[in-house]
Amino acid sequence: MEDFMELRIGVIGTGAIGTEHIERIANKLSGAKVTVVTDVDKPRAEKAAAVCGARIEKDGTGVIASSDVDAVMVTNWGPAHAKSILGSIAAGKMVFCEKPMTTTGADAKKIVDAEIAKGKKFTQVGFMRRYDKGYLQMKEILSSGKTGKPLMIHCAHRNVAKGTEYNTPMSVNDTAIHEIDVLHWLVGDQYVSAQVLFPKQTSLTHKDLRDPQIMILTTESGILIEIEVFVNCQFGYDIKCEVVCERASVELPLASFPSVKQDAKYYTALETDWKYRFIDSYDVEIQDWINNASKGIVKGPSAWDGYLAAVTADALVKAQGSGKIESIATGPCPDFYSC
Amino acid sequence: MEDFMELRIGVIGTGAIGTEHIERIANKLSGAKVTVVTDVDKPRAEKAAAVCGARIEKDGTGVIASSDVDAVMVTNWGPAHAKSILGSIAAGKMVFCEKPMTTTGADAKKIVDAEIAKGKKFTQVGFMRRYDKGYLQMKEILSSGKTGKPLMIHCAHRNVAKGTEYNTPMSVNDTAIHEIDVLHWLVGDQYVSAQVLFPKQTSLTHKDLRDPQIMILTTESGILIEIEVFVNCQFGYDIKCEVVCERASVELPLASFPSVKQDAKYYTALETDWKYRFIDSYDVEIQDWINNASKGIVKGPSAWDGYLAAVTADALVKAQGSGKIESIATGPCPDFYSC
Amino acid sequence: MEDFMELRIGVIGTGAIGTEHIERIANKLSGAKVTVVTDVDKPRAEKAAAVCGARIEKDGTGVIASSDVDAVMVTNWGPAHAKSILGSIAAGKMVFCEKPMTTTGADAKKIVDAEIAKGKKFTQVGFMRRYDKGYLQMKEILSSGKTGKPLMIHCAHRNVAKGTEYNTPMSVNDTAIHEIDVLHWLVGDQYVSAQVLFPKQTSLTHKDLRDPQIMILTTESGILIEIEVFVNCQFGYDIKCEVVCERASVELPLASFPSVKQDAKYYTALETDWKYRFIDSYDVEIQDWINNASKGIVKGPSAWDGYLAAVTADALVKAQGSGKIESIATGPCPDFYSC
Amino acid sequence: MEDFMELRIGVIGTGAIGTEHIERIANKLSGAKVTVVTDVDKPRAEKAAAVCGARIEKDGTGVIASSDVDAVMVTNWGPAHAKSILGSIAAGKMVFCEKPMTTTGADAKKIVDAEIAKGKKFTQVGFMRRYDKGYLQMKEILSSGKTGKPLMIHCAHRNVAKGTEYNTPMSVNDTAIHEIDVLHWLVGDQYVSAQVLFPKQTSLTHKDLRDPQIMILTTESGILIEIEVFVNCQFGYDIKCEVVCERASVELPLASFPSVKQDAKYYTALETDWKYRFIDSYDVEIQDWINNASKGIVKGPSAWDGYLAAVTADALVKAQGSGKIESIATGPCPDFYSC
Repeated sequence: MEDFMELRIGVIGTGAIGTEHIERIANKLSGAKVTVVTDVDKPRAEKAAAVCGARIEKDGTGVIASSDVDAVMVTNWGPAHAKSILGSIAAGKMVFCEKPMTTTGADAKKIVDAEIAKGKKFTQVGFMRRYDKGYLQMKEILSSGKTGKPLMIHCAHRNVAKGTEYNTPMSVNDTAIHEIDVLHWLVGDQYVSAQVLFPKQTSLTHKDLRDPQIMILTTESGILIEIEVFVNCQFGYDIKCEVVCERASVELPLASFPSVKQDAKYYTALETDWKYRFIDSYDVEIQDWINNASKGIVKGPSAWDGYLAAVTADALVKAQGSGKIESIATGPCPDFYSC
Repeated sequence: MEDFMELRIGVIGTGAIGTEHIERIANKLSGAKVTVVTDVDKPRAEKAAAVCGARIEKDGTGVIASSDVDAVMVTNWGPAHAKSILGSIAAGKMVFCEKPMTTTGADAKKIVDAEIAKGKKFTQVGFMRRYDKGYLQMKEILSSGKTGKPLMIHCAHRNVAKGTEYNTPMSVNDTAIHEIDVLHWLVGDQYVSAQVLFPKQTSLTHKDLRDPQIMILTTESGILIEIEVFVNCQFGYDIKCEVVCERASVELPLASFPSVKQDAKYYTALETDWKYRFIDSYDVEIQDWINNASKGIVKGPSAWDGYLAAVTADALVKAQGSGKIESIATGPCPDFYSC
Repeated sequence: MEDFMELRIGVIGTGAIGTEHIERIANKLSGAKVTVVTDVDKPRAEKAAAVCGARIEKDGTGVIASSDVDAVMVTNWGPAHAKSILGSIAAGKMVFCEKPMTTTGADAKKIVDAEIAKGKKFTQVGFMRRYDKGYLQMKEILSSGKTGKPLMIHCAHRNVAKGTEYNTPMSVNDTAIHEIDVLHWLVGDQYVSAQVLFPKQTSLTHKDLRDPQIMILTTESGILIEIEVFVNCQFGYDIKCEVVCERASVELPLASFPSVKQDAKYYTALETDWKYRFIDSYDVEIQDWINNASKGIVKGPSAWDGYLAAVTADALVKAQGSGKIESIATGPCPDFYSC
Repeated sequence: MEDFMELRIGVIGTGAIGTEHIERIANKLSGAKVTVVTDVDKPRAEKAAAVCGARIEKDGTGVIASSDVDAVMVTNWGPAHAKSILGSIAAGKMVFCEKPMTTTGADAKKIVDAEIAKGKKFTQVGFMRRYDKGYLQMKEILSSGKTGKPLMIHCAHRNVAKGTEYNTPMSVNDTAIHEIDVLHWLVGDQYVSAQVLFPKQTSLTHKDLRDPQIMILTTESGILIEIEVFVNCQFGYDIKCEVVCERASVELPLASFPSVKQDAKYYTALETDWKYRFIDSYDVEIQDWINNASKGIVKGPSAWDGYLAAVTADALVKAQGSGKIESIATGPCPDFYSC
């Protein structure tokens, strides 16, 4: 392989997820190296740079402008994403951005518009569940034509516990955001309305957090989706998804663990740390991005997907407050994104 | 055992379920015999009488009045239940009535009032799921104190297919009626509101039936219950129930079948006939009724439970039409029924 | 029903299992009553008699001779079974005998010969697993013609713990005896050889008991059966059975329990008391015997099955001692028993 | 990363598995590149070289001698493995060899002796199951101290079908070889005896192949292992492993697939192609080898493990012919390999 075939990546933001991606690229993946990093916290940037032998730029603008950077990875904090992505697009560089793409629908729209103006897709958003083997297998089954059309989806997103900094809107923006992206992709449909129901409150939460919640989304074709979000369930990290079709029901597999018979129980482990359930999909996601970005194309979740997620999340947060059914008006998918 | 210890039962209505109970009493259960039967269809009554060596009365009133009848089994069609039950109460005879106890809340209230006036419970309603081993095991686990309080219940009631005579309100009155009874018993709570959502319609139904539906009930303490009713699901008779508590989630077991590996599938059978899933619970139910009725007491689902089911079903049917949240105003449980 | 249609049963032996059957007949089953009982322990007999309103005879011979006894239930201790059964046959009375039918192959042969001499089958042996829903479902699948021929069977019979009175041969006579009967019935074949292997000994047993053991049986057609017997496994009462055929593998279902997610485990209960796994099959078994004995016929496990089990158990006990493959020479099944 | 930190690999043998590894290194893994390849089939070598931009040497000796080769991957046919490995050791180069390490125990011994003579481990054998998540999780559970000591292992290795070129000894050398390696590693014990039982023959095999077989291994501490090998089972690729301990039983997870309810079945897919079950473990294995070989160390299955597998396989093949228990005399593990 020629050197120029190795994608040179600049990383903006070397916090937890940024550093994980840097280590992933250095130690497990093929065809890329991190050449430049930056972070608002200088020592943190230095630590990350040492992992991969990168040099340090003073800010994101510097990273994007670097001649030894072919593609940009945006892993700074959410409100700063839009600027880094728009800068990369302006510089004509492929960009990977961790979720959420933007913190407002308006910012997301700017990115979509910038790509359309340039006539090229640059942005992939870090919705890694689309790379999870279980969801991919579900999509294959649902696309086989044997199940009939999807009618309903029952989901649950459960975490062991969250601290007092985690509040009611975060149930949407930090938690259900994964279901928001993966479900419309799974059934090839677009959301039109959002509603939130509040079951009995668990005593194991705090005053700023309604927990659990049931979020209800409907799609253009009429599919009804309900997502139980329960972030203090105590018992484990538990992701459920059942798609009920006209002729079949399809359920997401659990994480795989040995079955144990002991102490009058027949059990498998439930994960308690959310990191492990989708750990493999991160590797596949970033390798896929490297491979495609090297060719100047986007095959994963696009800026349009980031925009849909932002608008849908806004509607759910509004519905949390209003108690009403809120509409989700994204407008039709531009031909450019061929949804 | 003395002869007089054998409970002599009069059966009003010898259709499918009536005949099944007659055969059950004759061939599988202990402590009772059917001595008198009646049916609007004379040949059908004669056929049933031959099974158990009973004599025939010309109508329900005759059965109730018979001196060789200690207790009455009401298995005629729904609209006639109230009269048969009220007659039995007036005659001071214990009575078992198949579900629904009555077809209106008003009729149900009359039965409750009649029992209170007499100062004694006479009526057991045929909600056999309370005798199902799976639900009983769930109730034991939920009552153990280890799970924390129930917060949500996710249910599904799925049938393979229904004919054109089955219409939208029957999704409540004939189908969800089982969940209505068993769920409030399971968590020891009472319903306060009802709502019905309509997901995408399956193409495999007919114009008089919205299918599937999602029925939402809330309880006094705030538990949110959702029941997917999907009676043309094609794939099997499938009853699901998951109670999500503060510290644990508890799921109803599936019917038990051998696991088979064949043709690249690892499978268990799904039932297609609803009769088999709860067949054992019918035996336990009727034996329990015989044992208690012989002592003049009611331990199973009471007239009050029949009343609650009727009022709740009415609210759900109303909600199907209105699209709104409808309240369920049963009033508090009388001390007499010690719910 | 006429009185004479009720089978009058005399019970010889009112220990644990005898008393359970008496209660079963009195409180749960149809078409029979226990009229006479006996036991070597007089107060125990009196207690049992009180349960069902029976009178007491001083011994088994008296029970068999009683004019108010139509059929005999033999639930005394094993070595006394042969005398009670042979007496019943001589008296022309139908008989149900708890397992083992006899403690020696020679005694078993006498019973078979006595039935053949009388030209009628009288004896049913208490192998209740044949009435278990799981085994019946397996047999139906194996008989469907879709699985191809059975080639191997992998079984396990595990108990939580056994006391010091339980010794190595009892692993065959008290434990594997259930598999011995049910497996040849399941595949319709006869045993020809027996062998026992001794895995590493658990530290949680005592000097008179080799635990676990692997018992290997082969059949006439060449099916290889292995039965793990592990009676101090600590973790639960666990019965496994997988029949591997030419085109499919079929596994016995576990006992059915709710699934629970709690404390980072996803589990179902394992039974610890062997009584519950097959409790339902006892009811079905005794009802079936009552129904058939009333007509003077045997449809359940016959004297020939009791004989096969005795001879097979003898060979396995011999193999425990010899370490060799021992032959099982039962001779061909007489036409009379139409195996 | 500096260039010299990238491991330069020479591949001897570019058949199916060789080419897969080359693609893996080029497209998915980190820290290595294939610089030189060879194959007895020149066009095949050229095709493989094109994948990774490698140059071609005329034979294995040339590959090993190349100055741009830091480490050697041996993926030619089995009988040639010994020469390639011994050559690599002589040249002081780290080597990865696909299983079997050698086709005879004697050749395996030479490799062990060569490493001991050099005072350094060079060889990793391609037993990828040790990198499978399921086996690793089992090992962690078994090492937790909570299960008590392992007493028995029940395994099955089932393939859909094999052609006429596959014969009886290949059940050991090509199929059970995986269990042979992974099981002694799993329980940290060494084999002492081997035996093979032949169940009823499936009609779906051919005259040169006994199918199924049950292979029995015992270990130094007395653990009894049975491995059902059934390579024409028709129904799927099915790998089972249950370790029964003094206080618990631990079972290998199945491959994970969505659960589907359709056509009266509740099923998950069974794989039919053996390639997929352990596909992830190949990636982890080769990445681990790259990482360790870069440091000049061996952490995966060693030459000693290759030797144990060879001697055990020899004993099983002998047992297939003799029908007897054959001893496995590997001698104690040299301190050098610190088993």
